[in-house]
Amino acid sequence: MLNVITLDLEGVLVPEIWIEFSKITGIADFRLTTREVPDYDVLMKKRIELLAQHGLMLSDIQDVIRRMEPMNGAKEFLDRLRRQTQVVILSDTFTQFAGPLMEKLGLPTIFCNTLEVGPKGQVTGYRLRQKDGKKLAVQAFHSMGLKVFASGDSYNDTGMLLEADAGFFFCPPESITLQFPQIPVKRNYTELTESFDALLSERF
Amino acid sequence: MLNVITLDLEGVLVPEIWIEFSKITGIADFRLTTREVPDYDVLMKKRIELLAQHGLMLSDIQDVIRRMEPMNGAKEFLDRLRRQTQVVILSDTFTQFAGPLMEKLGLPTIFCNTLEVGPKGQVTGYRLRQKDGKKLAVQAFHSMGLKVFASGDSYNDTGMLLEADAGFFFCPPESITLQFPQIPVKRNYTELTESFDALLSERF
Repeated sequence: MLNVITLDLEGVLVPEIWIEFSKITGIADFRLTTREVPDYDVLMKKRIELLAQHGLMLSDIQDVIRRMEPMNGAKEFLDRLRRQTQVVILSDTFTQFAGPLMEKLGLPTIFCNTLEVGPKGQVTGYRLRQKDGKKLAVQAFHSMGLKVFASGDSYNDTGMLLEADAGFFFCPPESITLQFPQIPVKRNYTELTESFDALLSERF
Repeated sequence: MLNVITLDLEGVLVPEIWIEFSKITGIADFRLTTREVPDYDVLMKKRIELLAQHGLMLSDIQDVIRRMEPMNGAKEFLDRLRRQTQVVILSDTFTQFAGPLMEKLGLPTIFCNTLEVGPKGQVTGYRLRQKDGKKLAVQAFHSMGLKVFASGDSYNDTGMLLEADAGFFFCPPESITLQFPQIPVKRNYTELTESFDALLSERF
């Protein structure tokens, strides 16, 4: 049996983009993520409203992202995995955000969403690849005859983690672990690597 | 709409592995590929029989593969595509063959098959990811809400090329182009890049 490992991006391989943006702009409300607001649509509409209120454009976010670096050890963790098996990043971020981060991670494959951008560069809306996109991607990989192992840190990952053949929380907030006690928790790349290694070495 | 480009490996990004193996071993029958023998199972059983006859092991093939290089311009073609959109290689090669080639191509994502290997390192059989794997992968990507553009050179690519939103032959043998006149032919990376660029720039 062939395998694919699906990973969340923010909180697993790179810092949370909106939290970085909040730090740089000093606008506290940009700190909210799906960790705090499980309804992604509510969260995104709030973010787009905040951007408009403050006259901030897509390019302002992209400037912040270009200065961001992967989390400590993320590139090495990912490179090692990519030499052992196939890895696909499933993220709720946007194609317009992903570019510079993917470059720094060695161009892994990522499926994410897209922002709608107005003529002046203002963010006007967003378009999901599909609703429940992470969970449906796991189903799609299953339909390709692949076993799926997954890791993510947040509410929007739980569909993927539960649908996968094995799923692990990576450094999640405690509130989520209490709500999903059936999903094992990994606290660092060493622990996560050991868990994936054990699964990958199982006879197919 | 988000896109994924699915590419065949041998004949599109790297030379045909078995043809290289035929050159090095001097055993002419290893030259046959799905270009000549459309039934993959018939072809693979013949190859495994030939390996056994000549006492050749998996490691003998891997030695040849380690010395192989991507086709001229393949890495640059692939790198450029991977910066524009997502690329997944769909190949009938085997995980045991792919490693060194993927390393030289910058670790793109590949879904392929696996060889069954005996205790002495002899090839005893093979396991398909699934039957009609390339075509079903395109369907799976469609089910993820992705548009699929594809390229391949051979019989085993036609399912993928016809199922994709757009599919191109890349340097195919003439016999196939006559059989599938509805599939446009690209003769080099410049032509293929232009065709993908035009598709990727379409408003989603």
